[in-house]
Amino acid sequence: MSGVDGTSLAGVSGVVVRDAAADDVRAIVAMLVDDPLGATRESPDDLTPYHDALADIAGDPNQRVVVAVRDGEVIGTLQLTYMRGLGRRGATRAQIEAVRVRSDLRSAGLGSAMIRWAIEESRARGCTLVQLTSDASREGAHRFYERLGFTASHVGFKLSF
Amino acid sequence: MSGVDGTSLAGVSGVVVRDAAADDVRAIVAMLVDDPLGATRESPDDLTPYHDALADIAGDPNQRVVVAVRDGEVIGTLQLTYMRGLGRRGATRAQIEAVRVRSDLRSAGLGSAMIRWAIEESRARGCTLVQLTSDASREGAHRFYERLGFTASHVGFKLSF
Repeated sequence: MSGVDGTSLAGVSGVVVRDAAADDVRAIVAMLVDDPLGATRESPDDLTPYHDALADIAGDPNQRVVVAVRDGEVIGTLQLTYMRGLGRRGATRAQIEAVRVRSDLRSAGLGSAMIRWAIEESRARGCTLVQLTSDASREGAHRFYERLGFTASHVGFKLSF
Repeated sequence: MSGVDGTSLAGVSGVVVRDAAADDVRAIVAMLVDDPLGATRESPDDLTPYHDALADIAGDPNQRVVVAVRDGEVIGTLQLTYMRGLGRRGATRAQIEAVRVRSDLRSAGLGSAMIRWAIEESRARGCTLVQLTSDASREGAHRFYERLGFTASHVGFKLSF
């Protein structure tokens, strides 16, 4: 249903959600940097690796990076990955990563609307489960996801190289 | 490096790891069922959805279901998904799902060897992070992953339809 023009984001007026394009990379990276955890691990002065990554993702039918746009400005982003598995009778699950809302627009319902969009998009795609992890320190985010219907049923483990 | 013949699994003798084939589906599903959480959500009498899922996964260069095999018998399985993202300078992360060891062979080092294999495979593929979630009730599994170097830094949220 989405394309270059995008679709209206239910629940917030005047916001469209669409797949990210190369012109959106600078604004996406700015949101990744504007975050206590993200600040240390990004390089906004060199966008090349981000453009490479977006091109890679665009070529993968099971991966999407989307942006929320209002008046031509990128104000939110998230990534969706569709993962078929053998478990649960060969079910496909959707994973949400890299959810960001522009800092001056937080706590105004945009994040909720984006997650609800991702849930509906995943359901339309035939997924039977949506999952995500949130850093243990982000307690506000945990309440946010529980309000949206998620259950904090798992422990998320990471190993960085 | 893996193929039909597979590669020897470091740390346990006589075990090979290779991509799963259609003939392995019955044994994989048997391991998914033989689990307190999995028992209720699988249908071992009808393998069709599992075969469909494996064919789908085999066609996706970013997804692998592998089996550990000894003397021609499937004794373990896990799924690896490679996910490029924009964050962390366009990094690729690997996600491990659906880790199972045949019940009569648990606590003998096979699971550790399989996870170490998955970590090395992900590193060789250029990933900079390996992640997984484990049900909050599986406390033994949590200690297992921490011993392998993982940090329980996140809360895992799920929403089933």
